[in-house]
Amino acid sequence: MERTVDYDGARVKLIDQRLLPAEFKLVYIDAVDDMAFAIKDMIVRGAPAIGVAAALGVVLGAKNSQATDKAALMADIDSACETLKNTRPTAVNLFWGIDRMRDVAAKTEGSVADIIEAMEAEGRAMLDADEAACRALGAHGAELLPDECVIMTICNAGALATVAYGTALGVIRAAAEAGKKVKVFSLETRPRLQGMKLTCYELMADGIDVTCVSDGMAGSVLRSKGVNAVVVGADRIAANGDTANKIGTYSLAVEAKYHNVPFYVAAPVSTIDFNLESGGLIPIEERAEEEMTALGGTRIAPEGLKVYNPAFDVTPAELITAIVTEKGVVKSPNAEKMAVLK
Amino acid sequence: MERTVDYDGARVKLIDQRLLPAEFKLVYIDAVDDMAFAIKDMIVRGAPAIGVAAALGVVLGAKNSQATDKAALMADIDSACETLKNTRPTAVNLFWGIDRMRDVAAKTEGSVADIIEAMEAEGRAMLDADEAACRALGAHGAELLPDECVIMTICNAGALATVAYGTALGVIRAAAEAGKKVKVFSLETRPRLQGMKLTCYELMADGIDVTCVSDGMAGSVLRSKGVNAVVVGADRIAANGDTANKIGTYSLAVEAKYHNVPFYVAAPVSTIDFNLESGGLIPIEERAEEEMTALGGTRIAPEGLKVYNPAFDVTPAELITAIVTEKGVVKSPNAEKMAVLK
Repeated sequence: MERTVDYDGARVKLIDQRLLPAEFKLVYIDAVDDMAFAIKDMIVRGAPAIGVAAALGVVLGAKNSQATDKAALMADIDSACETLKNTRPTAVNLFWGIDRMRDVAAKTEGSVADIIEAMEAEGRAMLDADEAACRALGAHGAELLPDECVIMTICNAGALATVAYGTALGVIRAAAEAGKKVKVFSLETRPRLQGMKLTCYELMADGIDVTCVSDGMAGSVLRSKGVNAVVVGADRIAANGDTANKIGTYSLAVEAKYHNVPFYVAAPVSTIDFNLESGGLIPIEERAEEEMTALGGTRIAPEGLKVYNPAFDVTPAELITAIVTEKGVVKSPNAEKMAVLK
Repeated sequence: MERTVDYDGARVKLIDQRLLPAEFKLVYIDAVDDMAFAIKDMIVRGAPAIGVAAALGVVLGAKNSQATDKAALMADIDSACETLKNTRPTAVNLFWGIDRMRDVAAKTEGSVADIIEAMEAEGRAMLDADEAACRALGAHGAELLPDECVIMTICNAGALATVAYGTALGVIRAAAEAGKKVKVFSLETRPRLQGMKLTCYELMADGIDVTCVSDGMAGSVLRSKGVNAVVVGADRIAANGDTANKIGTYSLAVEAKYHNVPFYVAAPVSTIDFNLESGGLIPIEERAEEEMTALGGTRIAPEGLKVYNPAFDVTPAELITAIVTEKGVVKSPNAEKMAVLK
């Protein structure tokens, strides 16, 4: 499968995830505002993917600048950073990617062209590093799984949520590549159905056995179908291991606990926010009610219906068996153990 | 609101629940096959409603019979019973309603006209009794709730699932009528979204405060929104209190347990199947995958997707705080305590 995010020296390529699985379409972005829209409207989504996409958005801001000296260039870069940060609040990778790219610009000495060249090199390195991190954490995670694994996952923490390979789905891919027998139950993940539309699509393309179930089926599937691991991604992990991820993840963690099924969070260290002591401090995005009340442009709900549509929830560390990163696995996470990943 | 099921002496009236909330349409049924289709296709749904509707379907079978003696009439009635039983397997009320109506025919002496008259009288009595049972169990259930109650429910165990008033929603209505302050969180209930389309519609019509959330939000709402009771309906309750209800109910019961929120099942005694020792014996209907993979006729899933679509799950009695019936409340249900409802 081709990379979800890439850069050709002029434009950032994205796979338009709003159209999958019905249509596979590439979108080419060459301006900061277009990248901000792509993140907000979820053309690109998934914490690692938006981190790298936003960083590349800063590169576009620099390339489109008319500045002839560093001070003017930095002003344009800061404006691009501001625009890109005001898109989605929860995934910390967004801020991490933007800040990292700004730092490269700030630290590079030389002409405007030199600075842009350094930024482009950093962007390419981030693309490669994200894929490498996914492969490394995938390998670590796969070691935790039995030879015949039945895995439940939620939303899409796959190749489509990263540059390539995926986090939770990276663990699943690595298990399959290691010769383990893999069966996956994918929660469809209302309201946007990324589990059905993206995770199932990805896994089917890879020939991995996947069955889609509705979110409410989690308990009865955990009870009756021999699931022996739950693996999910993350949008932001606090310093103590509390994890914000797609809405429904906390419910799933409670179900896993009740059914004595290990619950693994798979994420690159760029998803860890060591500045936040615990999960209660993670800002949770609430999205438009139309995500719930309409589907494919058709209204499904009674007129005037009141809905509550948080995009994420927070799973406390005590419900997490282990956090799997490219730097290694932290079992029974807490602040002290998480600090080794700094 | 008008009755969900009614009988005018010639035809059975149903509210077409496939079209709500977009359209309120009444359907008039005058033949057994049409009633079987109405049950299978979920024009009428909800265990108590299909119990009475099926019983009235048997009446239609008798009325349409050309028989001139009891033996011939009973043959036609038995054929109608067979057709109506082969519609949906899980709700025991279906079999209860059909058998009860057949018994009336079998026991009545006299002419064909006398038998049909007795059956029609029984049908009218069942309509009234279902509504009365809902009002009685509603009142019993309301006593269990605090003066300021925040209730979570799933699917539709409302007026639309019964002749009138509802079971779980009957408890909620009775609490509101008793002057309690009531706030409801309705799980939307994929795949068919009866929570969003029917429960929210009903409660909004009654002016009861309701917020719709996706099924995966159950855990985070229970954790953060002060929910102090979960109230659900039932499709079949085994002799020990194990309860089959809409898929997602078991997950919700696990969440309620984890969050120390009482979990109440509200159902008429006609939903109790004393012939089944425990919930593992309840047949669980699996429905067409299109319920999950398409919405409003539009495919939402990848082509070739494998789905698992059980319509119900079983919640073990140990997760149930109390079962609320028109004959009274059974707390911490088990076989011995349930026997008082026989």
